Amino acid sequence: MSDQIQLSLQQVRELSEGILLYNGFSLDHAQSITDTIYACQQDDCQSHGLYRLLMCIESIRSGRVDGSAEPSVTDAGPSVVKANANQGISLLALRAGMPLLIEKAKKNGIAAMAINNCFHFSALWPEVEVLSSAGLAGLAMVPSHAWVAPAGGTRGTLGTNPLAFSWPRIGKHPFTFDFATSQFARGEIELYRRAGKPLPEGVAIDKQGNPTTDAEAAMQGAMLTFGGYKGSALSIMIELLAGPLIDDLTSKESMEFAQGKPEAPYHGEIIIAFDPHMFSAGQVGKNNERAERMFADIIEQGARLPSQRRYQARERNKASGYVSMPKNLYEDLLALKK
Amino acid sequence: MSDQIQLSLQQVRELSEGILLYNGFSLDHAQSITDTIYACQQDDCQSHGLYRLLMCIESIRSGRVDGSAEPSVTDAGPSVVKANANQGISLLALRAGMPLLIEKAKKNGIAAMAINNCFHFSALWPEVEVLSSAGLAGLAMVPSHAWVAPAGGTRGTLGTNPLAFSWPRIGKHPFTFDFATSQFARGEIELYRRAGKPLPEGVAIDKQGNPTTDAEAAMQGAMLTFGGYKGSALSIMIELLAGPLIDDLTSKESMEFAQGKPEAPYHGEIIIAFDPHMFSAGQVGKNNERAERMFADIIEQGARLPSQRRYQARERNKASGYVSMPKNLYEDLLALKK
Repeated sequence: MSDQIQLSLQQVRELSEGILLYNGFSLDHAQSITDTIYACQQDDCQSHGLYRLLMCIESIRSGRVDGSAEPSVTDAGPSVVKANANQGISLLALRAGMPLLIEKAKKNGIAAMAINNCFHFSALWPEVEVLSSAGLAGLAMVPSHAWVAPAGGTRGTLGTNPLAFSWPRIGKHPFTFDFATSQFARGEIELYRRAGKPLPEGVAIDKQGNPTTDAEAAMQGAMLTFGGYKGSALSIMIELLAGPLIDDLTSKESMEFAQGKPEAPYHGEIIIAFDPHMFSAGQVGKNNERAERMFADIIEQGARLPSQRRYQARERNKASGYVSMPKNLYEDLLALKK
Repeated sequence: MSDQIQLSLQQVRELSEGILLYNGFSLDHAQSITDTIYACQQDDCQSHGLYRLLMCIESIRSGRVDGSAEPSVTDAGPSVVKANANQGISLLALRAGMPLLIEKAKKNGIAAMAINNCFHFSALWPEVEVLSSAGLAGLAMVPSHAWVAPAGGTRGTLGTNPLAFSWPRIGKHPFTFDFATSQFARGEIELYRRAGKPLPEGVAIDKQGNPTTDAEAAMQGAMLTFGGYKGSALSIMIELLAGPLIDDLTSKESMEFAQGKPEAPYHGEIIIAFDPHMFSAGQVGKNNERAERMFADIIEQGARLPSQRRYQARERNKASGYVSMPKNLYEDLLALKK
């Protein structure tokens, strides 16, 4: 298709690092950000691939993100790692703290890492997949900006608050999911607005707190959580565990901090790691088979495990060495180096 | 109302313990089961109060529950407690393991308890509220029986898989929720069937895997998760964390084990405890205020926090010293002592 362009995986890496370095990120930041963008682009996860550089560069150009912030990792307790991003993008702090998180999880059975004072723009699945690559199960949660109303409410209080989970499968890609607790992603509503299309029911409310299918009214009003009051409760849990628990901002505080600027939100993140070896008293093989029987039962009935499309794209793109992306996005990215 | 009966809280305790002892439970089991039943009845949580004794007694009369099983608690790792119920009801194992879980969470920041080889019939919120009473945040998950289809599937694979969370609020009842990841509880569908009422859309599928609003067809087919593919992913996560992770049964294995008997399901449970003191580096007061601002923002817009109705019932029933329950249930309970 003429509106698509092919880039080699090597070009993806070079383009990303080049843009980040040109705009003032240190080499460490450029590399850690690029690792995640590369992983997303390799899986055809367009919404969190090179596209995210636009927001990332906006955040450093506004002067609020520190492009050379050195994260500090603290051993905050036998099973707790604190990784302070010191006003940098979250990913270098994540990379800095991950080895200690993995070590603590394997030593103690369960451990958690709090990333504090970070700007956050990235998909969570690459983060929990680092844990499952190490043989651990991982659960990650972050707040965002207060665009989402609680069940029964009339205005934005909660973030889109994604939750990602990964389970290691022996000899296979992990079982991984990563979803926003809002019914729709913010960007999806924006796409409906641009296309002048009505939203489905149950996705948003207007400024007065009434249900709306008008995407423009939804952008002015608030989004709704998935799954009614249950999704809303889960979203509040994410606010608490990735905010007040770890001494960091709620989505509402994060939004106030941003003062209306279209930057990456500034807040914390929590990642929990579980060691199947310790929890099962060494019975990992038997329990891997038990999990596999469940996955097989799901697949046999025609249901899909999450992330399968992503894994197929990964195989395909790794084999060809190329990914494709919209040409106009590529042009927008090139402009970031001018 | 003439179809209701008033019992004093003391009578609730005596009735429950009396029935349990009469049917062969040891004093320890009778007391630990009664503690939870009493807490539920005190909160007017009828579905998990004295009513649950019917299932509990059915389970011991069939000879599969060991009414005098001694749980064994193992210090399975610096942050892991294993409480083996040894074919007893879960609650004595829970009680036996809880002090070590709390101690480990306070010492290490995060800790988890796996309860294994237990029959399970009880609400999870009293369990996580034990943690929030100790100043910890708590998260509990259990599988059940494979009545629920995964998103896009045609048959039961997943349990109703409840998830409960509690957050300690200084000087207030905790923020607690406890929900099934199925759209409806199994008992609700049964109530629709008895009443001959059609189910809402999106709650169940029939034996052929087609959507149905016929409650009888739903009982023969499968229930659906809340929140579509997101709720389904969450339910699979609960299967993994409360099953293969901890070397215990999935909902499908639990259902096979039951061989069609209407007993309490037999499987495991996982409870995770977080210490706000360690995660916030001692900033509990400041972060309690931060959480309270979020709760206030939710309440101000007319939304309800979960569990508020329950807490109101608790205040009212503690003050009066009496609870009310259906007369015919009371008569069914008395019959358990004959």
